[in-house]
Amino acid sequence: MKNNHKIIDCTIRDGGLVNNWDFSVEFVQDLYNGLSAAGVEYMEIGYKNSPKLLNATEPNPWRFLDDDFLKEIIPEKKFTKLSALVDIGRVDPNDILPRAESVLDMIRVACYIREVDKGLELVNMFHNLGYETSLNIMALSSVPEHQLIEAFAMIENSPVDVVYIVDSFGSLDPDNIEYQIKKFQAMLPNKQLGIHTHNNLQLAFANTLTAMKNGVTFLDSSVYGMGRAAGNCHTELLVGYIQKTTYELKPILGVIEKHMLAMREKWEWGYIIPFMISGVLNEHPRVAMAYRNSDKRDNFVDFYDMVTTPEATLAATTKA
Amino acid sequence: MKNNHKIIDCTIRDGGLVNNWDFSVEFVQDLYNGLSAAGVEYMEIGYKNSPKLLNATEPNPWRFLDDDFLKEIIPEKKFTKLSALVDIGRVDPNDILPRAESVLDMIRVACYIREVDKGLELVNMFHNLGYETSLNIMALSSVPEHQLIEAFAMIENSPVDVVYIVDSFGSLDPDNIEYQIKKFQAMLPNKQLGIHTHNNLQLAFANTLTAMKNGVTFLDSSVYGMGRAAGNCHTELLVGYIQKTTYELKPILGVIEKHMLAMREKWEWGYIIPFMISGVLNEHPRVAMAYRNSDKRDNFVDFYDMVTTPEATLAATTKA
Repeated sequence: MKNNHKIIDCTIRDGGLVNNWDFSVEFVQDLYNGLSAAGVEYMEIGYKNSPKLLNATEPNPWRFLDDDFLKEIIPEKKFTKLSALVDIGRVDPNDILPRAESVLDMIRVACYIREVDKGLELVNMFHNLGYETSLNIMALSSVPEHQLIEAFAMIENSPVDVVYIVDSFGSLDPDNIEYQIKKFQAMLPNKQLGIHTHNNLQLAFANTLTAMKNGVTFLDSSVYGMGRAAGNCHTELLVGYIQKTTYELKPILGVIEKHMLAMREKWEWGYIIPFMISGVLNEHPRVAMAYRNSDKRDNFVDFYDMVTTPEATLAATTKA
Repeated sequence: MKNNHKIIDCTIRDGGLVNNWDFSVEFVQDLYNGLSAAGVEYMEIGYKNSPKLLNATEPNPWRFLDDDFLKEIIPEKKFTKLSALVDIGRVDPNDILPRAESVLDMIRVACYIREVDKGLELVNMFHNLGYETSLNIMALSSVPEHQLIEAFAMIENSPVDVVYIVDSFGSLDPDNIEYQIKKFQAMLPNKQLGIHTHNNLQLAFANTLTAMKNGVTFLDSSVYGMGRAAGNCHTELLVGYIQKTTYELKPILGVIEKHMLAMREKWEWGYIIPFMISGVLNEHPRVAMAYRNSDKRDNFVDFYDMVTTPEATLAATTKA
């Protein structure tokens, strides 16, 4: 197997969906230094959305990344490159410096299939500013085939560097992943591919290995799996398992030991039964997340009845 | 895919390695009823080793299964068949009733590769008494090829119904599993195969799916993954994910809700960093288990240094 793949650690960005980006500067710095020492190629340090466009009332440095702030907390870049994610309709072009003046190396654009045209407009802008770019098509498991084909036609002629297969609901298995990859490869032969998995069915690592084996280059993960709901593929599994001489597990273990155990006590992510159920049902975890924030959080049978009975779901989410 | 596979739930047997089989009768009954309602085909209710041969000083009903006791707690068999595991040199033939007089349907024999001859002697005895039988070859990931070939020659001519591929150290990935299966199938075309996985690398479910896809019939698992160290493939994932009309997830969720969350608070199993490390290193989890019982249980960097530096390992395990 060629070792041309790259890990993008999403602990801050996707993990921020768990704790509203309540990360200390010390943690982010320790993570950056740990990832660099471990040989992890990229760190996604947050979202570069606009606080104005999101009507934010409070500062949130990892959700609204600011170049001056980033230069302050990471005065010297080490091995690991930095990336940021943006959402359609939430980016102010005036916020984006040319890459030469920014600490960021890559900007990734998350979009649903119906917004691929808008996603590619952003990609063009970032590309022209000198950034590496990716387009991350979310909720892939529920995209109808004909929409995907239309999207591919647009993507093929864009300057985007990487196109992502995103298993937003954590509902895909290795066979599904392989099927998607072959389709993407056939229709986008000139693009590198990426994979972003969720761990609802404990398949995030296996799906990522399958992607790697099938030629996917960019592998998303999070330290100790920290990410929305069931979380992501674990960075420590990729770094520990992949045979690449530049990878070193120990610095990641240091980050887990120093920070992640306490964070996991405080915030919840990972293999938790309602998230498993939403994965089995190929559904967004939002209903399960609301349930976990209610008094009934451990009533798994009740939750299962609720999500497999449509009228009950509606009533429960309205209450939650 | 043909739906001729069978789940063997090992919660009591392998989970007992976590809590010294400290299971209440109520829990075992609830589990049996839940598995029956869920359509799980087999439940391994413990070990049928001899307390005399193990010099046991205390009673341990799930470690030393007794037919009279079993009939008392399960007066009426439901859907799920019952199995027991035995170890080489720990079984007293006088303890084994003919199947017609026993609650047990299947007796499985665990052995290391060097003891396959002795394992098959036990298999012969159980087979002649009317039981379904399996031979579970442990620590497969470190068995030299030539020993496996010798063992296969003996197994082929035995009456054993099922031969297991056991990933004792949780170190195998889906490709490794597929490779082993093809080898077993080629050399034992007349035997059904089984798979028993451990979850050190979060690959237990993926490995079990791979096995199923490749024609393995008997799938071991545990409710909520309860099993030694990193635990096993989760029964609720198999029952929830496999398309088989007779499977029903809800009864398993009921068992998890009523019992497993509290048990997981009390006893430790699952994805825990030192077990992940022993999986990456393809080593028995005993050093990691000892470490988790020491004051240094969360010192992952120290543990990593210890197990990757041979002389340090020796010193630490002697102290533990």
